[in-house]
Amino acid sequence: MENLKSVEEIKKLMGIEDERIKTWQQLREVIVKSQKPNLAMLTDFYEFTMSQAFFKAGDKTKKVYFDVFFRSNPFDGGYTINGGLEDIIKFISEFHYNDADIEYLREKGLDPEFLEYLRVLRFNGDMWAIPEGTPIFPNEPVITIRANIIEAQLLESLILAYFNQGSLIATSAKRITNAAREIPTSDFGLRRGHGEGVINGSKYAIIGGCASTSNTLTGELYDVKISGTMAHDLVQFYGNDYDAFMHYAKGNPNNCVFLVDTFDTLKLGVPAAIRVAQEFLIPNGYPFIGIRIDSGDLAYLSKEARKQLDEAGFTDAKIFLTNGLNEQKINSLKQQGACFDAIGAGDNVLAPKERMNGVYKLVAVEENNKIVPRIKISNDYVKITNPGYKKVYRFYDRKTGYALGDVVALADELIPHDYYTLVSPIEEWKKTELHDYEVEELQVPIFQGGQLVYDIPTVEERAKYCADKFTTLYPEVKRDINPHEYYVDLSMKLLQLKKELLMQYSENVEEVQVNGKQI
Amino acid sequence: MENLKSVEEIKKLMGIEDERIKTWQQLREVIVKSQKPNLAMLTDFYEFTMSQAFFKAGDKTKKVYFDVFFRSNPFDGGYTINGGLEDIIKFISEFHYNDADIEYLREKGLDPEFLEYLRVLRFNGDMWAIPEGTPIFPNEPVITIRANIIEAQLLESLILAYFNQGSLIATSAKRITNAAREIPTSDFGLRRGHGEGVINGSKYAIIGGCASTSNTLTGELYDVKISGTMAHDLVQFYGNDYDAFMHYAKGNPNNCVFLVDTFDTLKLGVPAAIRVAQEFLIPNGYPFIGIRIDSGDLAYLSKEARKQLDEAGFTDAKIFLTNGLNEQKINSLKQQGACFDAIGAGDNVLAPKERMNGVYKLVAVEENNKIVPRIKISNDYVKITNPGYKKVYRFYDRKTGYALGDVVALADELIPHDYYTLVSPIEEWKKTELHDYEVEELQVPIFQGGQLVYDIPTVEERAKYCADKFTTLYPEVKRDINPHEYYVDLSMKLLQLKKELLMQYSENVEEVQVNGKQI
Repeated sequence: MENLKSVEEIKKLMGIEDERIKTWQQLREVIVKSQKPNLAMLTDFYEFTMSQAFFKAGDKTKKVYFDVFFRSNPFDGGYTINGGLEDIIKFISEFHYNDADIEYLREKGLDPEFLEYLRVLRFNGDMWAIPEGTPIFPNEPVITIRANIIEAQLLESLILAYFNQGSLIATSAKRITNAAREIPTSDFGLRRGHGEGVINGSKYAIIGGCASTSNTLTGELYDVKISGTMAHDLVQFYGNDYDAFMHYAKGNPNNCVFLVDTFDTLKLGVPAAIRVAQEFLIPNGYPFIGIRIDSGDLAYLSKEARKQLDEAGFTDAKIFLTNGLNEQKINSLKQQGACFDAIGAGDNVLAPKERMNGVYKLVAVEENNKIVPRIKISNDYVKITNPGYKKVYRFYDRKTGYALGDVVALADELIPHDYYTLVSPIEEWKKTELHDYEVEELQVPIFQGGQLVYDIPTVEERAKYCADKFTTLYPEVKRDINPHEYYVDLSMKLLQLKKELLMQYSENVEEVQVNGKQI
Repeated sequence: MENLKSVEEIKKLMGIEDERIKTWQQLREVIVKSQKPNLAMLTDFYEFTMSQAFFKAGDKTKKVYFDVFFRSNPFDGGYTINGGLEDIIKFISEFHYNDADIEYLREKGLDPEFLEYLRVLRFNGDMWAIPEGTPIFPNEPVITIRANIIEAQLLESLILAYFNQGSLIATSAKRITNAAREIPTSDFGLRRGHGEGVINGSKYAIIGGCASTSNTLTGELYDVKISGTMAHDLVQFYGNDYDAFMHYAKGNPNNCVFLVDTFDTLKLGVPAAIRVAQEFLIPNGYPFIGIRIDSGDLAYLSKEARKQLDEAGFTDAKIFLTNGLNEQKINSLKQQGACFDAIGAGDNVLAPKERMNGVYKLVAVEENNKIVPRIKISNDYVKITNPGYKKVYRFYDRKTGYALGDVVALADELIPHDYYTLVSPIEEWKKTELHDYEVEELQVPIFQGGQLVYDIPTVEERAKYCADKFTTLYPEVKRDINPHEYYVDLSMKLLQLKKELLMQYSENVEEVQVNGKQI
């Protein structure tokens, strides 16, 4: 009884400052309105109708295995950087339906008994995943889930949305930062991304190698480095470069990168930057960090600007380049001997003209405590899924540290540590014999029986991990154009299983229809 | 004093069911954790550093005008559908910084006095915008903001992110639904979009013409139609089509669209669907809505499936097609006489390999109660901005109702209602004389002095509005490939102003540097 609070006390507790809020009802409305939508509802409606079918058929406790994988690297590249895992973990940890959701689903015609089941549903299954930031390759299970069929089913859509966005953007960032090499790259893509999707988007850009982001909210939420100085409108507002730079310098004396291309880079912009450095920054002990060029012939302008800066004695002043930079443009700038110390990339990091095609496929069902593999047939051989509960192993050359290839195997297989033969799953005559290697199991346990058993590294730690893992790829795999195809082979046992299932399928194709027999 | 509540009472009020929450501190943590991040922080960091410069220079009450516009239609198309306005309005209405934000910005080195200003900052300006769902064209002001410089500056990034995402997806949806014409198209793109960005993404898809979405959360939040039935894993789980369809039908008897391509569309899938309809749906009075085909040769399979359905007497059963459908594939299916009644589009609606390049440019400054136009110069003529406070007018042929062209004019110009000459802003010898037209002013008032003065139509109303407006475009403008370029001309007065500013610029280019004189 002693523990009662007033509206004002609750407002203070919650950090709500609006003095117009005086009643409990107003307080409730403000709090409810400011709450995040329940992401468990961010799912394709068919996940509910299928789950209702499983529920009605009495199959809700049947255990199944689903794999997340993808069929080709984005950008016609040689690798993909795994992204999205942190968001997937948070989503699964908080997975539940609230009263309002249940009511909405009831209006959409779902069954009351099924809805009562949904009301208490939580994720109680197991999940393994390749850590965020790892280079990953087509047709290997990046995430594997073992759970009751309905739990696994309802997670599908958002797992894929996070995986597809995260991996797309981590990969675009890696491709650009790999082209830039020692030159730090900032993510400036917020305004061109997919609306609120950029909150996570900028995080994936950092994991993929961007040194900082312009996205202040992502900086606040994930403690990553933010950066930014000025836009053209500052110069337009003051009408000329000199006044604009001087006002900016007085307002932000320790953060001066002057944007010099509003009117005329070499005649007006760079000279004005030098003058403000000479007249204000240096005499007052502030650093002249540098200039940014955002239009025109960046190769030519950067070289000429470098000369002007050097001649004025500002040999340490840096040149930042921006304007639709991507791998090819960065390589071209380097080839031309452009003078630059940092770049900003926007569109091509957060809004690449590309997409990831990650999928979520049923690979096994548990029946009488046995794991029964499932396959999805397709006329196109590469679209036939790899059946069964599986693990992925990466082989590293013990001498050089380079990754030699990955092998997808059934979970109960032992991988020998002394001698292994990689066999192409499609062109079986292509074999590579491996000796003197280290083997790494790529998936790590994330959830066990619904409990999170994984410590999520910070974004910075994931970026560092990604950079380290990236060095294990052969340069030929990392090449921008026409890269070498990294080996992802199936173990002989898995290949055999796949063939058997395909054989059964083709023999039973008529019979199935008649008998409803499982294939 | 009478009005005090306990933790349990507050939990009930807020709809929090977790019985583990017993203390005020636990309650606070749960509520804070479930709150949306403050979108005012979803901005490029340079908006703050520039604003700090304006603040320190004593310019915080200077009024400026910014335009949102874009330079080319996405998809090499002839039009763009305006999207994102509702989200922009909500963002601006709620625009503020909270204690935690201020503290974060303080850590990032911003000035204490400026931060105290930010703490009480709200949007007090004016905004005009072209309504969401309107076909829009390059180089016309879609949104115009008049506000104190800092308010206008801090809104830039997220206005652009919403505009760019909204218009990209509304346009991709319109292109696909325009190709499909009378055939309804569902948005199935959730899993391929940009993570949480798809919550709004699916809304834009509806505005652009999709009849429904698979995105349950968007359905719940915006009261739009949702749809969906089954995926391959249901069939894989039960091992054969017949058992899977029968279980599904028993679980969802009123929502049966059977996915028939898991193993073999014509030999197994369609016959199983027919059998379940004959054995269960029809005898029990339920509808056999139809089948979905998601792989293989959709033209051939749909025609053969149609035959099987018709022969079994199910002439009303519909055929749904999915699998990477876009404008070209839909046109091709129609040309081949494919039999289909509805389509689902995923990747190409919510994750098109394309982006919008909307920008936010300073166009005028108020000085001594006069509106002084500002221009941004570029070596590339099409990148030079249109200066001044402007309005956009659309001319419609009074006989046919078709849109003839748009004119961008200075805000104080009168547009004659009887006779007008369109003049190309680049090729001035290209003139079109207009008679017998109706003129529509495209921008409508949204905010006045910070007050919202616009009733946001529902998503469905916007979709209807969009469909209606789309009929005013000539077929040549709507053509998928190589469309006719819609006229967006400048008034003679605006063109004259632009030329004068350019002339001043070129005459003063040296002098500016010396005198800091405004151009």
